[in-house]
Amino acid sequence: MTRIGIYGSEGRMGQAIVAAMPALDAVPAGGCDVGDDPRQLAQACDVLVDFSAPAALEAHLAAARAARTPIVVGTTGLGASHHALIDAAATEIAILQTGNTSLGLGMLLALVRDAAARLGADWDIEIAEMHHREKVDAPSGTALMLGEAAASGRGSTLAESGVVGRAGLTGSRARGTIGFASMRGGSVVGDHLVVFAGDGERIELVHRAEDRAIFARGAVRAAQWLAGKPAGRYTMDQVLGL
Amino acid sequence: MTRIGIYGSEGRMGQAIVAAMPALDAVPAGGCDVGDDPRQLAQACDVLVDFSAPAALEAHLAAARAARTPIVVGTTGLGASHHALIDAAATEIAILQTGNTSLGLGMLLALVRDAAARLGADWDIEIAEMHHREKVDAPSGTALMLGEAAASGRGSTLAESGVVGRAGLTGSRARGTIGFASMRGGSVVGDHLVVFAGDGERIELVHRAEDRAIFARGAVRAAQWLAGKPAGRYTMDQVLGL
Amino acid sequence: MTRIGIYGSEGRMGQAIVAAMPALDAVPAGGCDVGDDPRQLAQACDVLVDFSAPAALEAHLAAARAARTPIVVGTTGLGASHHALIDAAATEIAILQTGNTSLGLGMLLALVRDAAARLGADWDIEIAEMHHREKVDAPSGTALMLGEAAASGRGSTLAESGVVGRAGLTGSRARGTIGFASMRGGSVVGDHLVVFAGDGERIELVHRAEDRAIFARGAVRAAQWLAGKPAGRYTMDQVLGL
Amino acid sequence: MTRIGIYGSEGRMGQAIVAAMPALDAVPAGGCDVGDDPRQLAQACDVLVDFSAPAALEAHLAAARAARTPIVVGTTGLGASHHALIDAAATEIAILQTGNTSLGLGMLLALVRDAAARLGADWDIEIAEMHHREKVDAPSGTALMLGEAAASGRGSTLAESGVVGRAGLTGSRARGTIGFASMRGGSVVGDHLVVFAGDGERIELVHRAEDRAIFARGAVRAAQWLAGKPAGRYTMDQVLGL
Repeated sequence: MTRIGIYGSEGRMGQAIVAAMPALDAVPAGGCDVGDDPRQLAQACDVLVDFSAPAALEAHLAAARAARTPIVVGTTGLGASHHALIDAAATEIAILQTGNTSLGLGMLLALVRDAAARLGADWDIEIAEMHHREKVDAPSGTALMLGEAAASGRGSTLAESGVVGRAGLTGSRARGTIGFASMRGGSVVGDHLVVFAGDGERIELVHRAEDRAIFARGAVRAAQWLAGKPAGRYTMDQVLGL
Repeated sequence: MTRIGIYGSEGRMGQAIVAAMPALDAVPAGGCDVGDDPRQLAQACDVLVDFSAPAALEAHLAAARAARTPIVVGTTGLGASHHALIDAAATEIAILQTGNTSLGLGMLLALVRDAAARLGADWDIEIAEMHHREKVDAPSGTALMLGEAAASGRGSTLAESGVVGRAGLTGSRARGTIGFASMRGGSVVGDHLVVFAGDGERIELVHRAEDRAIFARGAVRAAQWLAGKPAGRYTMDQVLGL
Repeated sequence: MTRIGIYGSEGRMGQAIVAAMPALDAVPAGGCDVGDDPRQLAQACDVLVDFSAPAALEAHLAAARAARTPIVVGTTGLGASHHALIDAAATEIAILQTGNTSLGLGMLLALVRDAAARLGADWDIEIAEMHHREKVDAPSGTALMLGEAAASGRGSTLAESGVVGRAGLTGSRARGTIGFASMRGGSVVGDHLVVFAGDGERIELVHRAEDRAIFARGAVRAAQWLAGKPAGRYTMDQVLGL
Repeated sequence: MTRIGIYGSEGRMGQAIVAAMPALDAVPAGGCDVGDDPRQLAQACDVLVDFSAPAALEAHLAAARAARTPIVVGTTGLGASHHALIDAAATEIAILQTGNTSLGLGMLLALVRDAAARLGADWDIEIAEMHHREKVDAPSGTALMLGEAAASGRGSTLAESGVVGRAGLTGSRARGTIGFASMRGGSVVGDHLVVFAGDGERIELVHRAEDRAIFARGAVRAAQWLAGKPAGRYTMDQVLGL
């Protein structure tokens, strides 16, 4: 039984993680919310997961380092300064940071990188996603991860090749670009589509999330995998054996 | 045998129309390109089709009126002044103007208007389209027609409700809007998708054009239907019996 | 507040119906399971819903008739004898029987009938569906309802035109047939696709159920609509105003 | 300039191959049809392609061996005895046999094998395909190739795990099976869909052939790649560098 400590245990994702544990041979080692002392939790568990807020990351990493406890960071909206904090902490403890803990999406990322590398720039890449009506940003963080995977497969970066929100007189498509299109509506948990469009044929790689529980289960599995690992920065690909 | 006169007979669409005629009991009554006299052609045929350029529309309508010959106008990129010219000519001759002559798309337009009217504003509407890498504008004219059909089904207009090219911090979706997403790549003739996203379920209405010949065949059928009709402005819905 | 009595209240659907009521201005008037007296429940509510088993239908209809209470029948697996019982009861009370209470599927049925009627037999019709790995029959009852809608739009019946489970040396497709294809896997609640395939173009009409709660909500809405109606047999189309 | 000799040059595929050559730096070295002497052609070219008929394979292989000319075999409907002939010839000359020469489908096969291997048997695999109304067999040969790729990724074979044409009371899905569903209609060149359905999420891998020219171009590329290779049996994966 892995004892998992949760930062952000009152949030939607925190509660889903608690609900996912019994079926996966894990137990919650207690939660920790705003105002609590993060160090106490870090000492009481085998591994931490953080789905709280970017502003709390620094204190959570400090607590994990002090207790020498590995930590999974799933908080979204991280910037360059947060990644620097994670890199620094990874010199002393095991850290896995990811924007998406679903097994299926981890697989899709691997397939997209692979296809982009092998097909080359004669195949145009477009990424579309649909999410529920409450989502406030576009493209989704996961769509951008897919774009990075495609760009890296081609030896490029999304900063060089991404095109977001085509509208108006765009001119014909520039070779090597990666386009993004976002749809919003209803209660869609999250669908992602990557199109490779060649001359006379297309490949489409799709992921459909039916249920938010997949993200909670993936977080628990990532935590179980990380428990006991030596210091360093790890990825979901490694958890999934990809 | 319907004798069809073509304005713009050297263009891609003009040539496709000529190729489509034999299988549809129609014969070309001669073509007419830049520099030719449009009046001669108007007198030599049962019905005209115009797939030339907006700048030539005024002369073509004048020739059709002088000869009392019905005319199908499929030229794209028309503005308000062109529509005023068409309305004026329709007092004397039969005119059918359309941005898309495919039978399947005509059907999709009717289904979208219908579904939008019946489902009401609890179902969010999103429209996505994909076209080949050479297309220079977004969204496609056909996507905008689908948007107008959806808006009119709700008793609204696209000017009021359309949202193009979502990107960045958009905030949550505004009720009653119609979103557009455009993809470009490869050799895709034209795919259109209209999503109605409700709570816990979705309806998706899709059209896939496999072959540009469908537009030429639709233009010939529209011309055959229009030949002999009294003065007035007609629509593809009427040709299709929708 | 509509008081709704549930036959089959301990089943998965019965419990989902109870859960759906508060948000829809309805209250459960008590449940009724195997061994209970169905007449007591029929007298204590404004309208009944039956999601129990075919074998219990006769007793439930008798109770509804005795109490003059309208009843929604959503039980699946009914045969000709059950429909005869329903027809007989409909001479005295209001009855609505349906194999699918989702609003979106009701809409899809109407669109399919309409498109089949207007497009004619030059457009081949194929119906595909995917459901979770536990489903024991194929095609789904809803796929067959969609097939009936398509056939009736063409002035035919599914008995005349349906083709299930194509495999082996089938020969080329017979004109006017309606083909069915079934997929099973994972936890898919239920996706249905109707393809109209013409020369050079396709129309695809899709419904995706994301959450079983849509069927419970639809059952509550149907019950609310049926309460107070005069004797007769009613359909979901009427509830949906289609 | 590669000189390519075509067995079956009057067939639809043979003619498409001739049409594809100029854009790909290849020239036809003459054709060879029923009644011609296959040895003459084999001596006049750098590489042969055979898209004729299974009955002609033996004579074509003998001619290729006599002239020491590599040969691409794209003829469909081969049985075990034909494969034995190919294996024997491959001891003396370079041979590449394939049921599908499209680059995109080659890529899809590689992605499917990979995903099946990594996801494991918790993810149910289903394969659907749609082809034009004239196709006489089901599932398509390409769907079966995709099924073999999925089965081999799992360390199994399609003979062990394939389920074709689900219909009637099938019972719940057996773990580890691979299901096939076929649709027929209109003028669809060929769409293939492989679904991996897990708990709460799905991955869909799709190939859409828009134009038959992709198969001709792939055959020319395979021939160019094979010209000059030493004796042995080769695959499209190697041509594509997969």
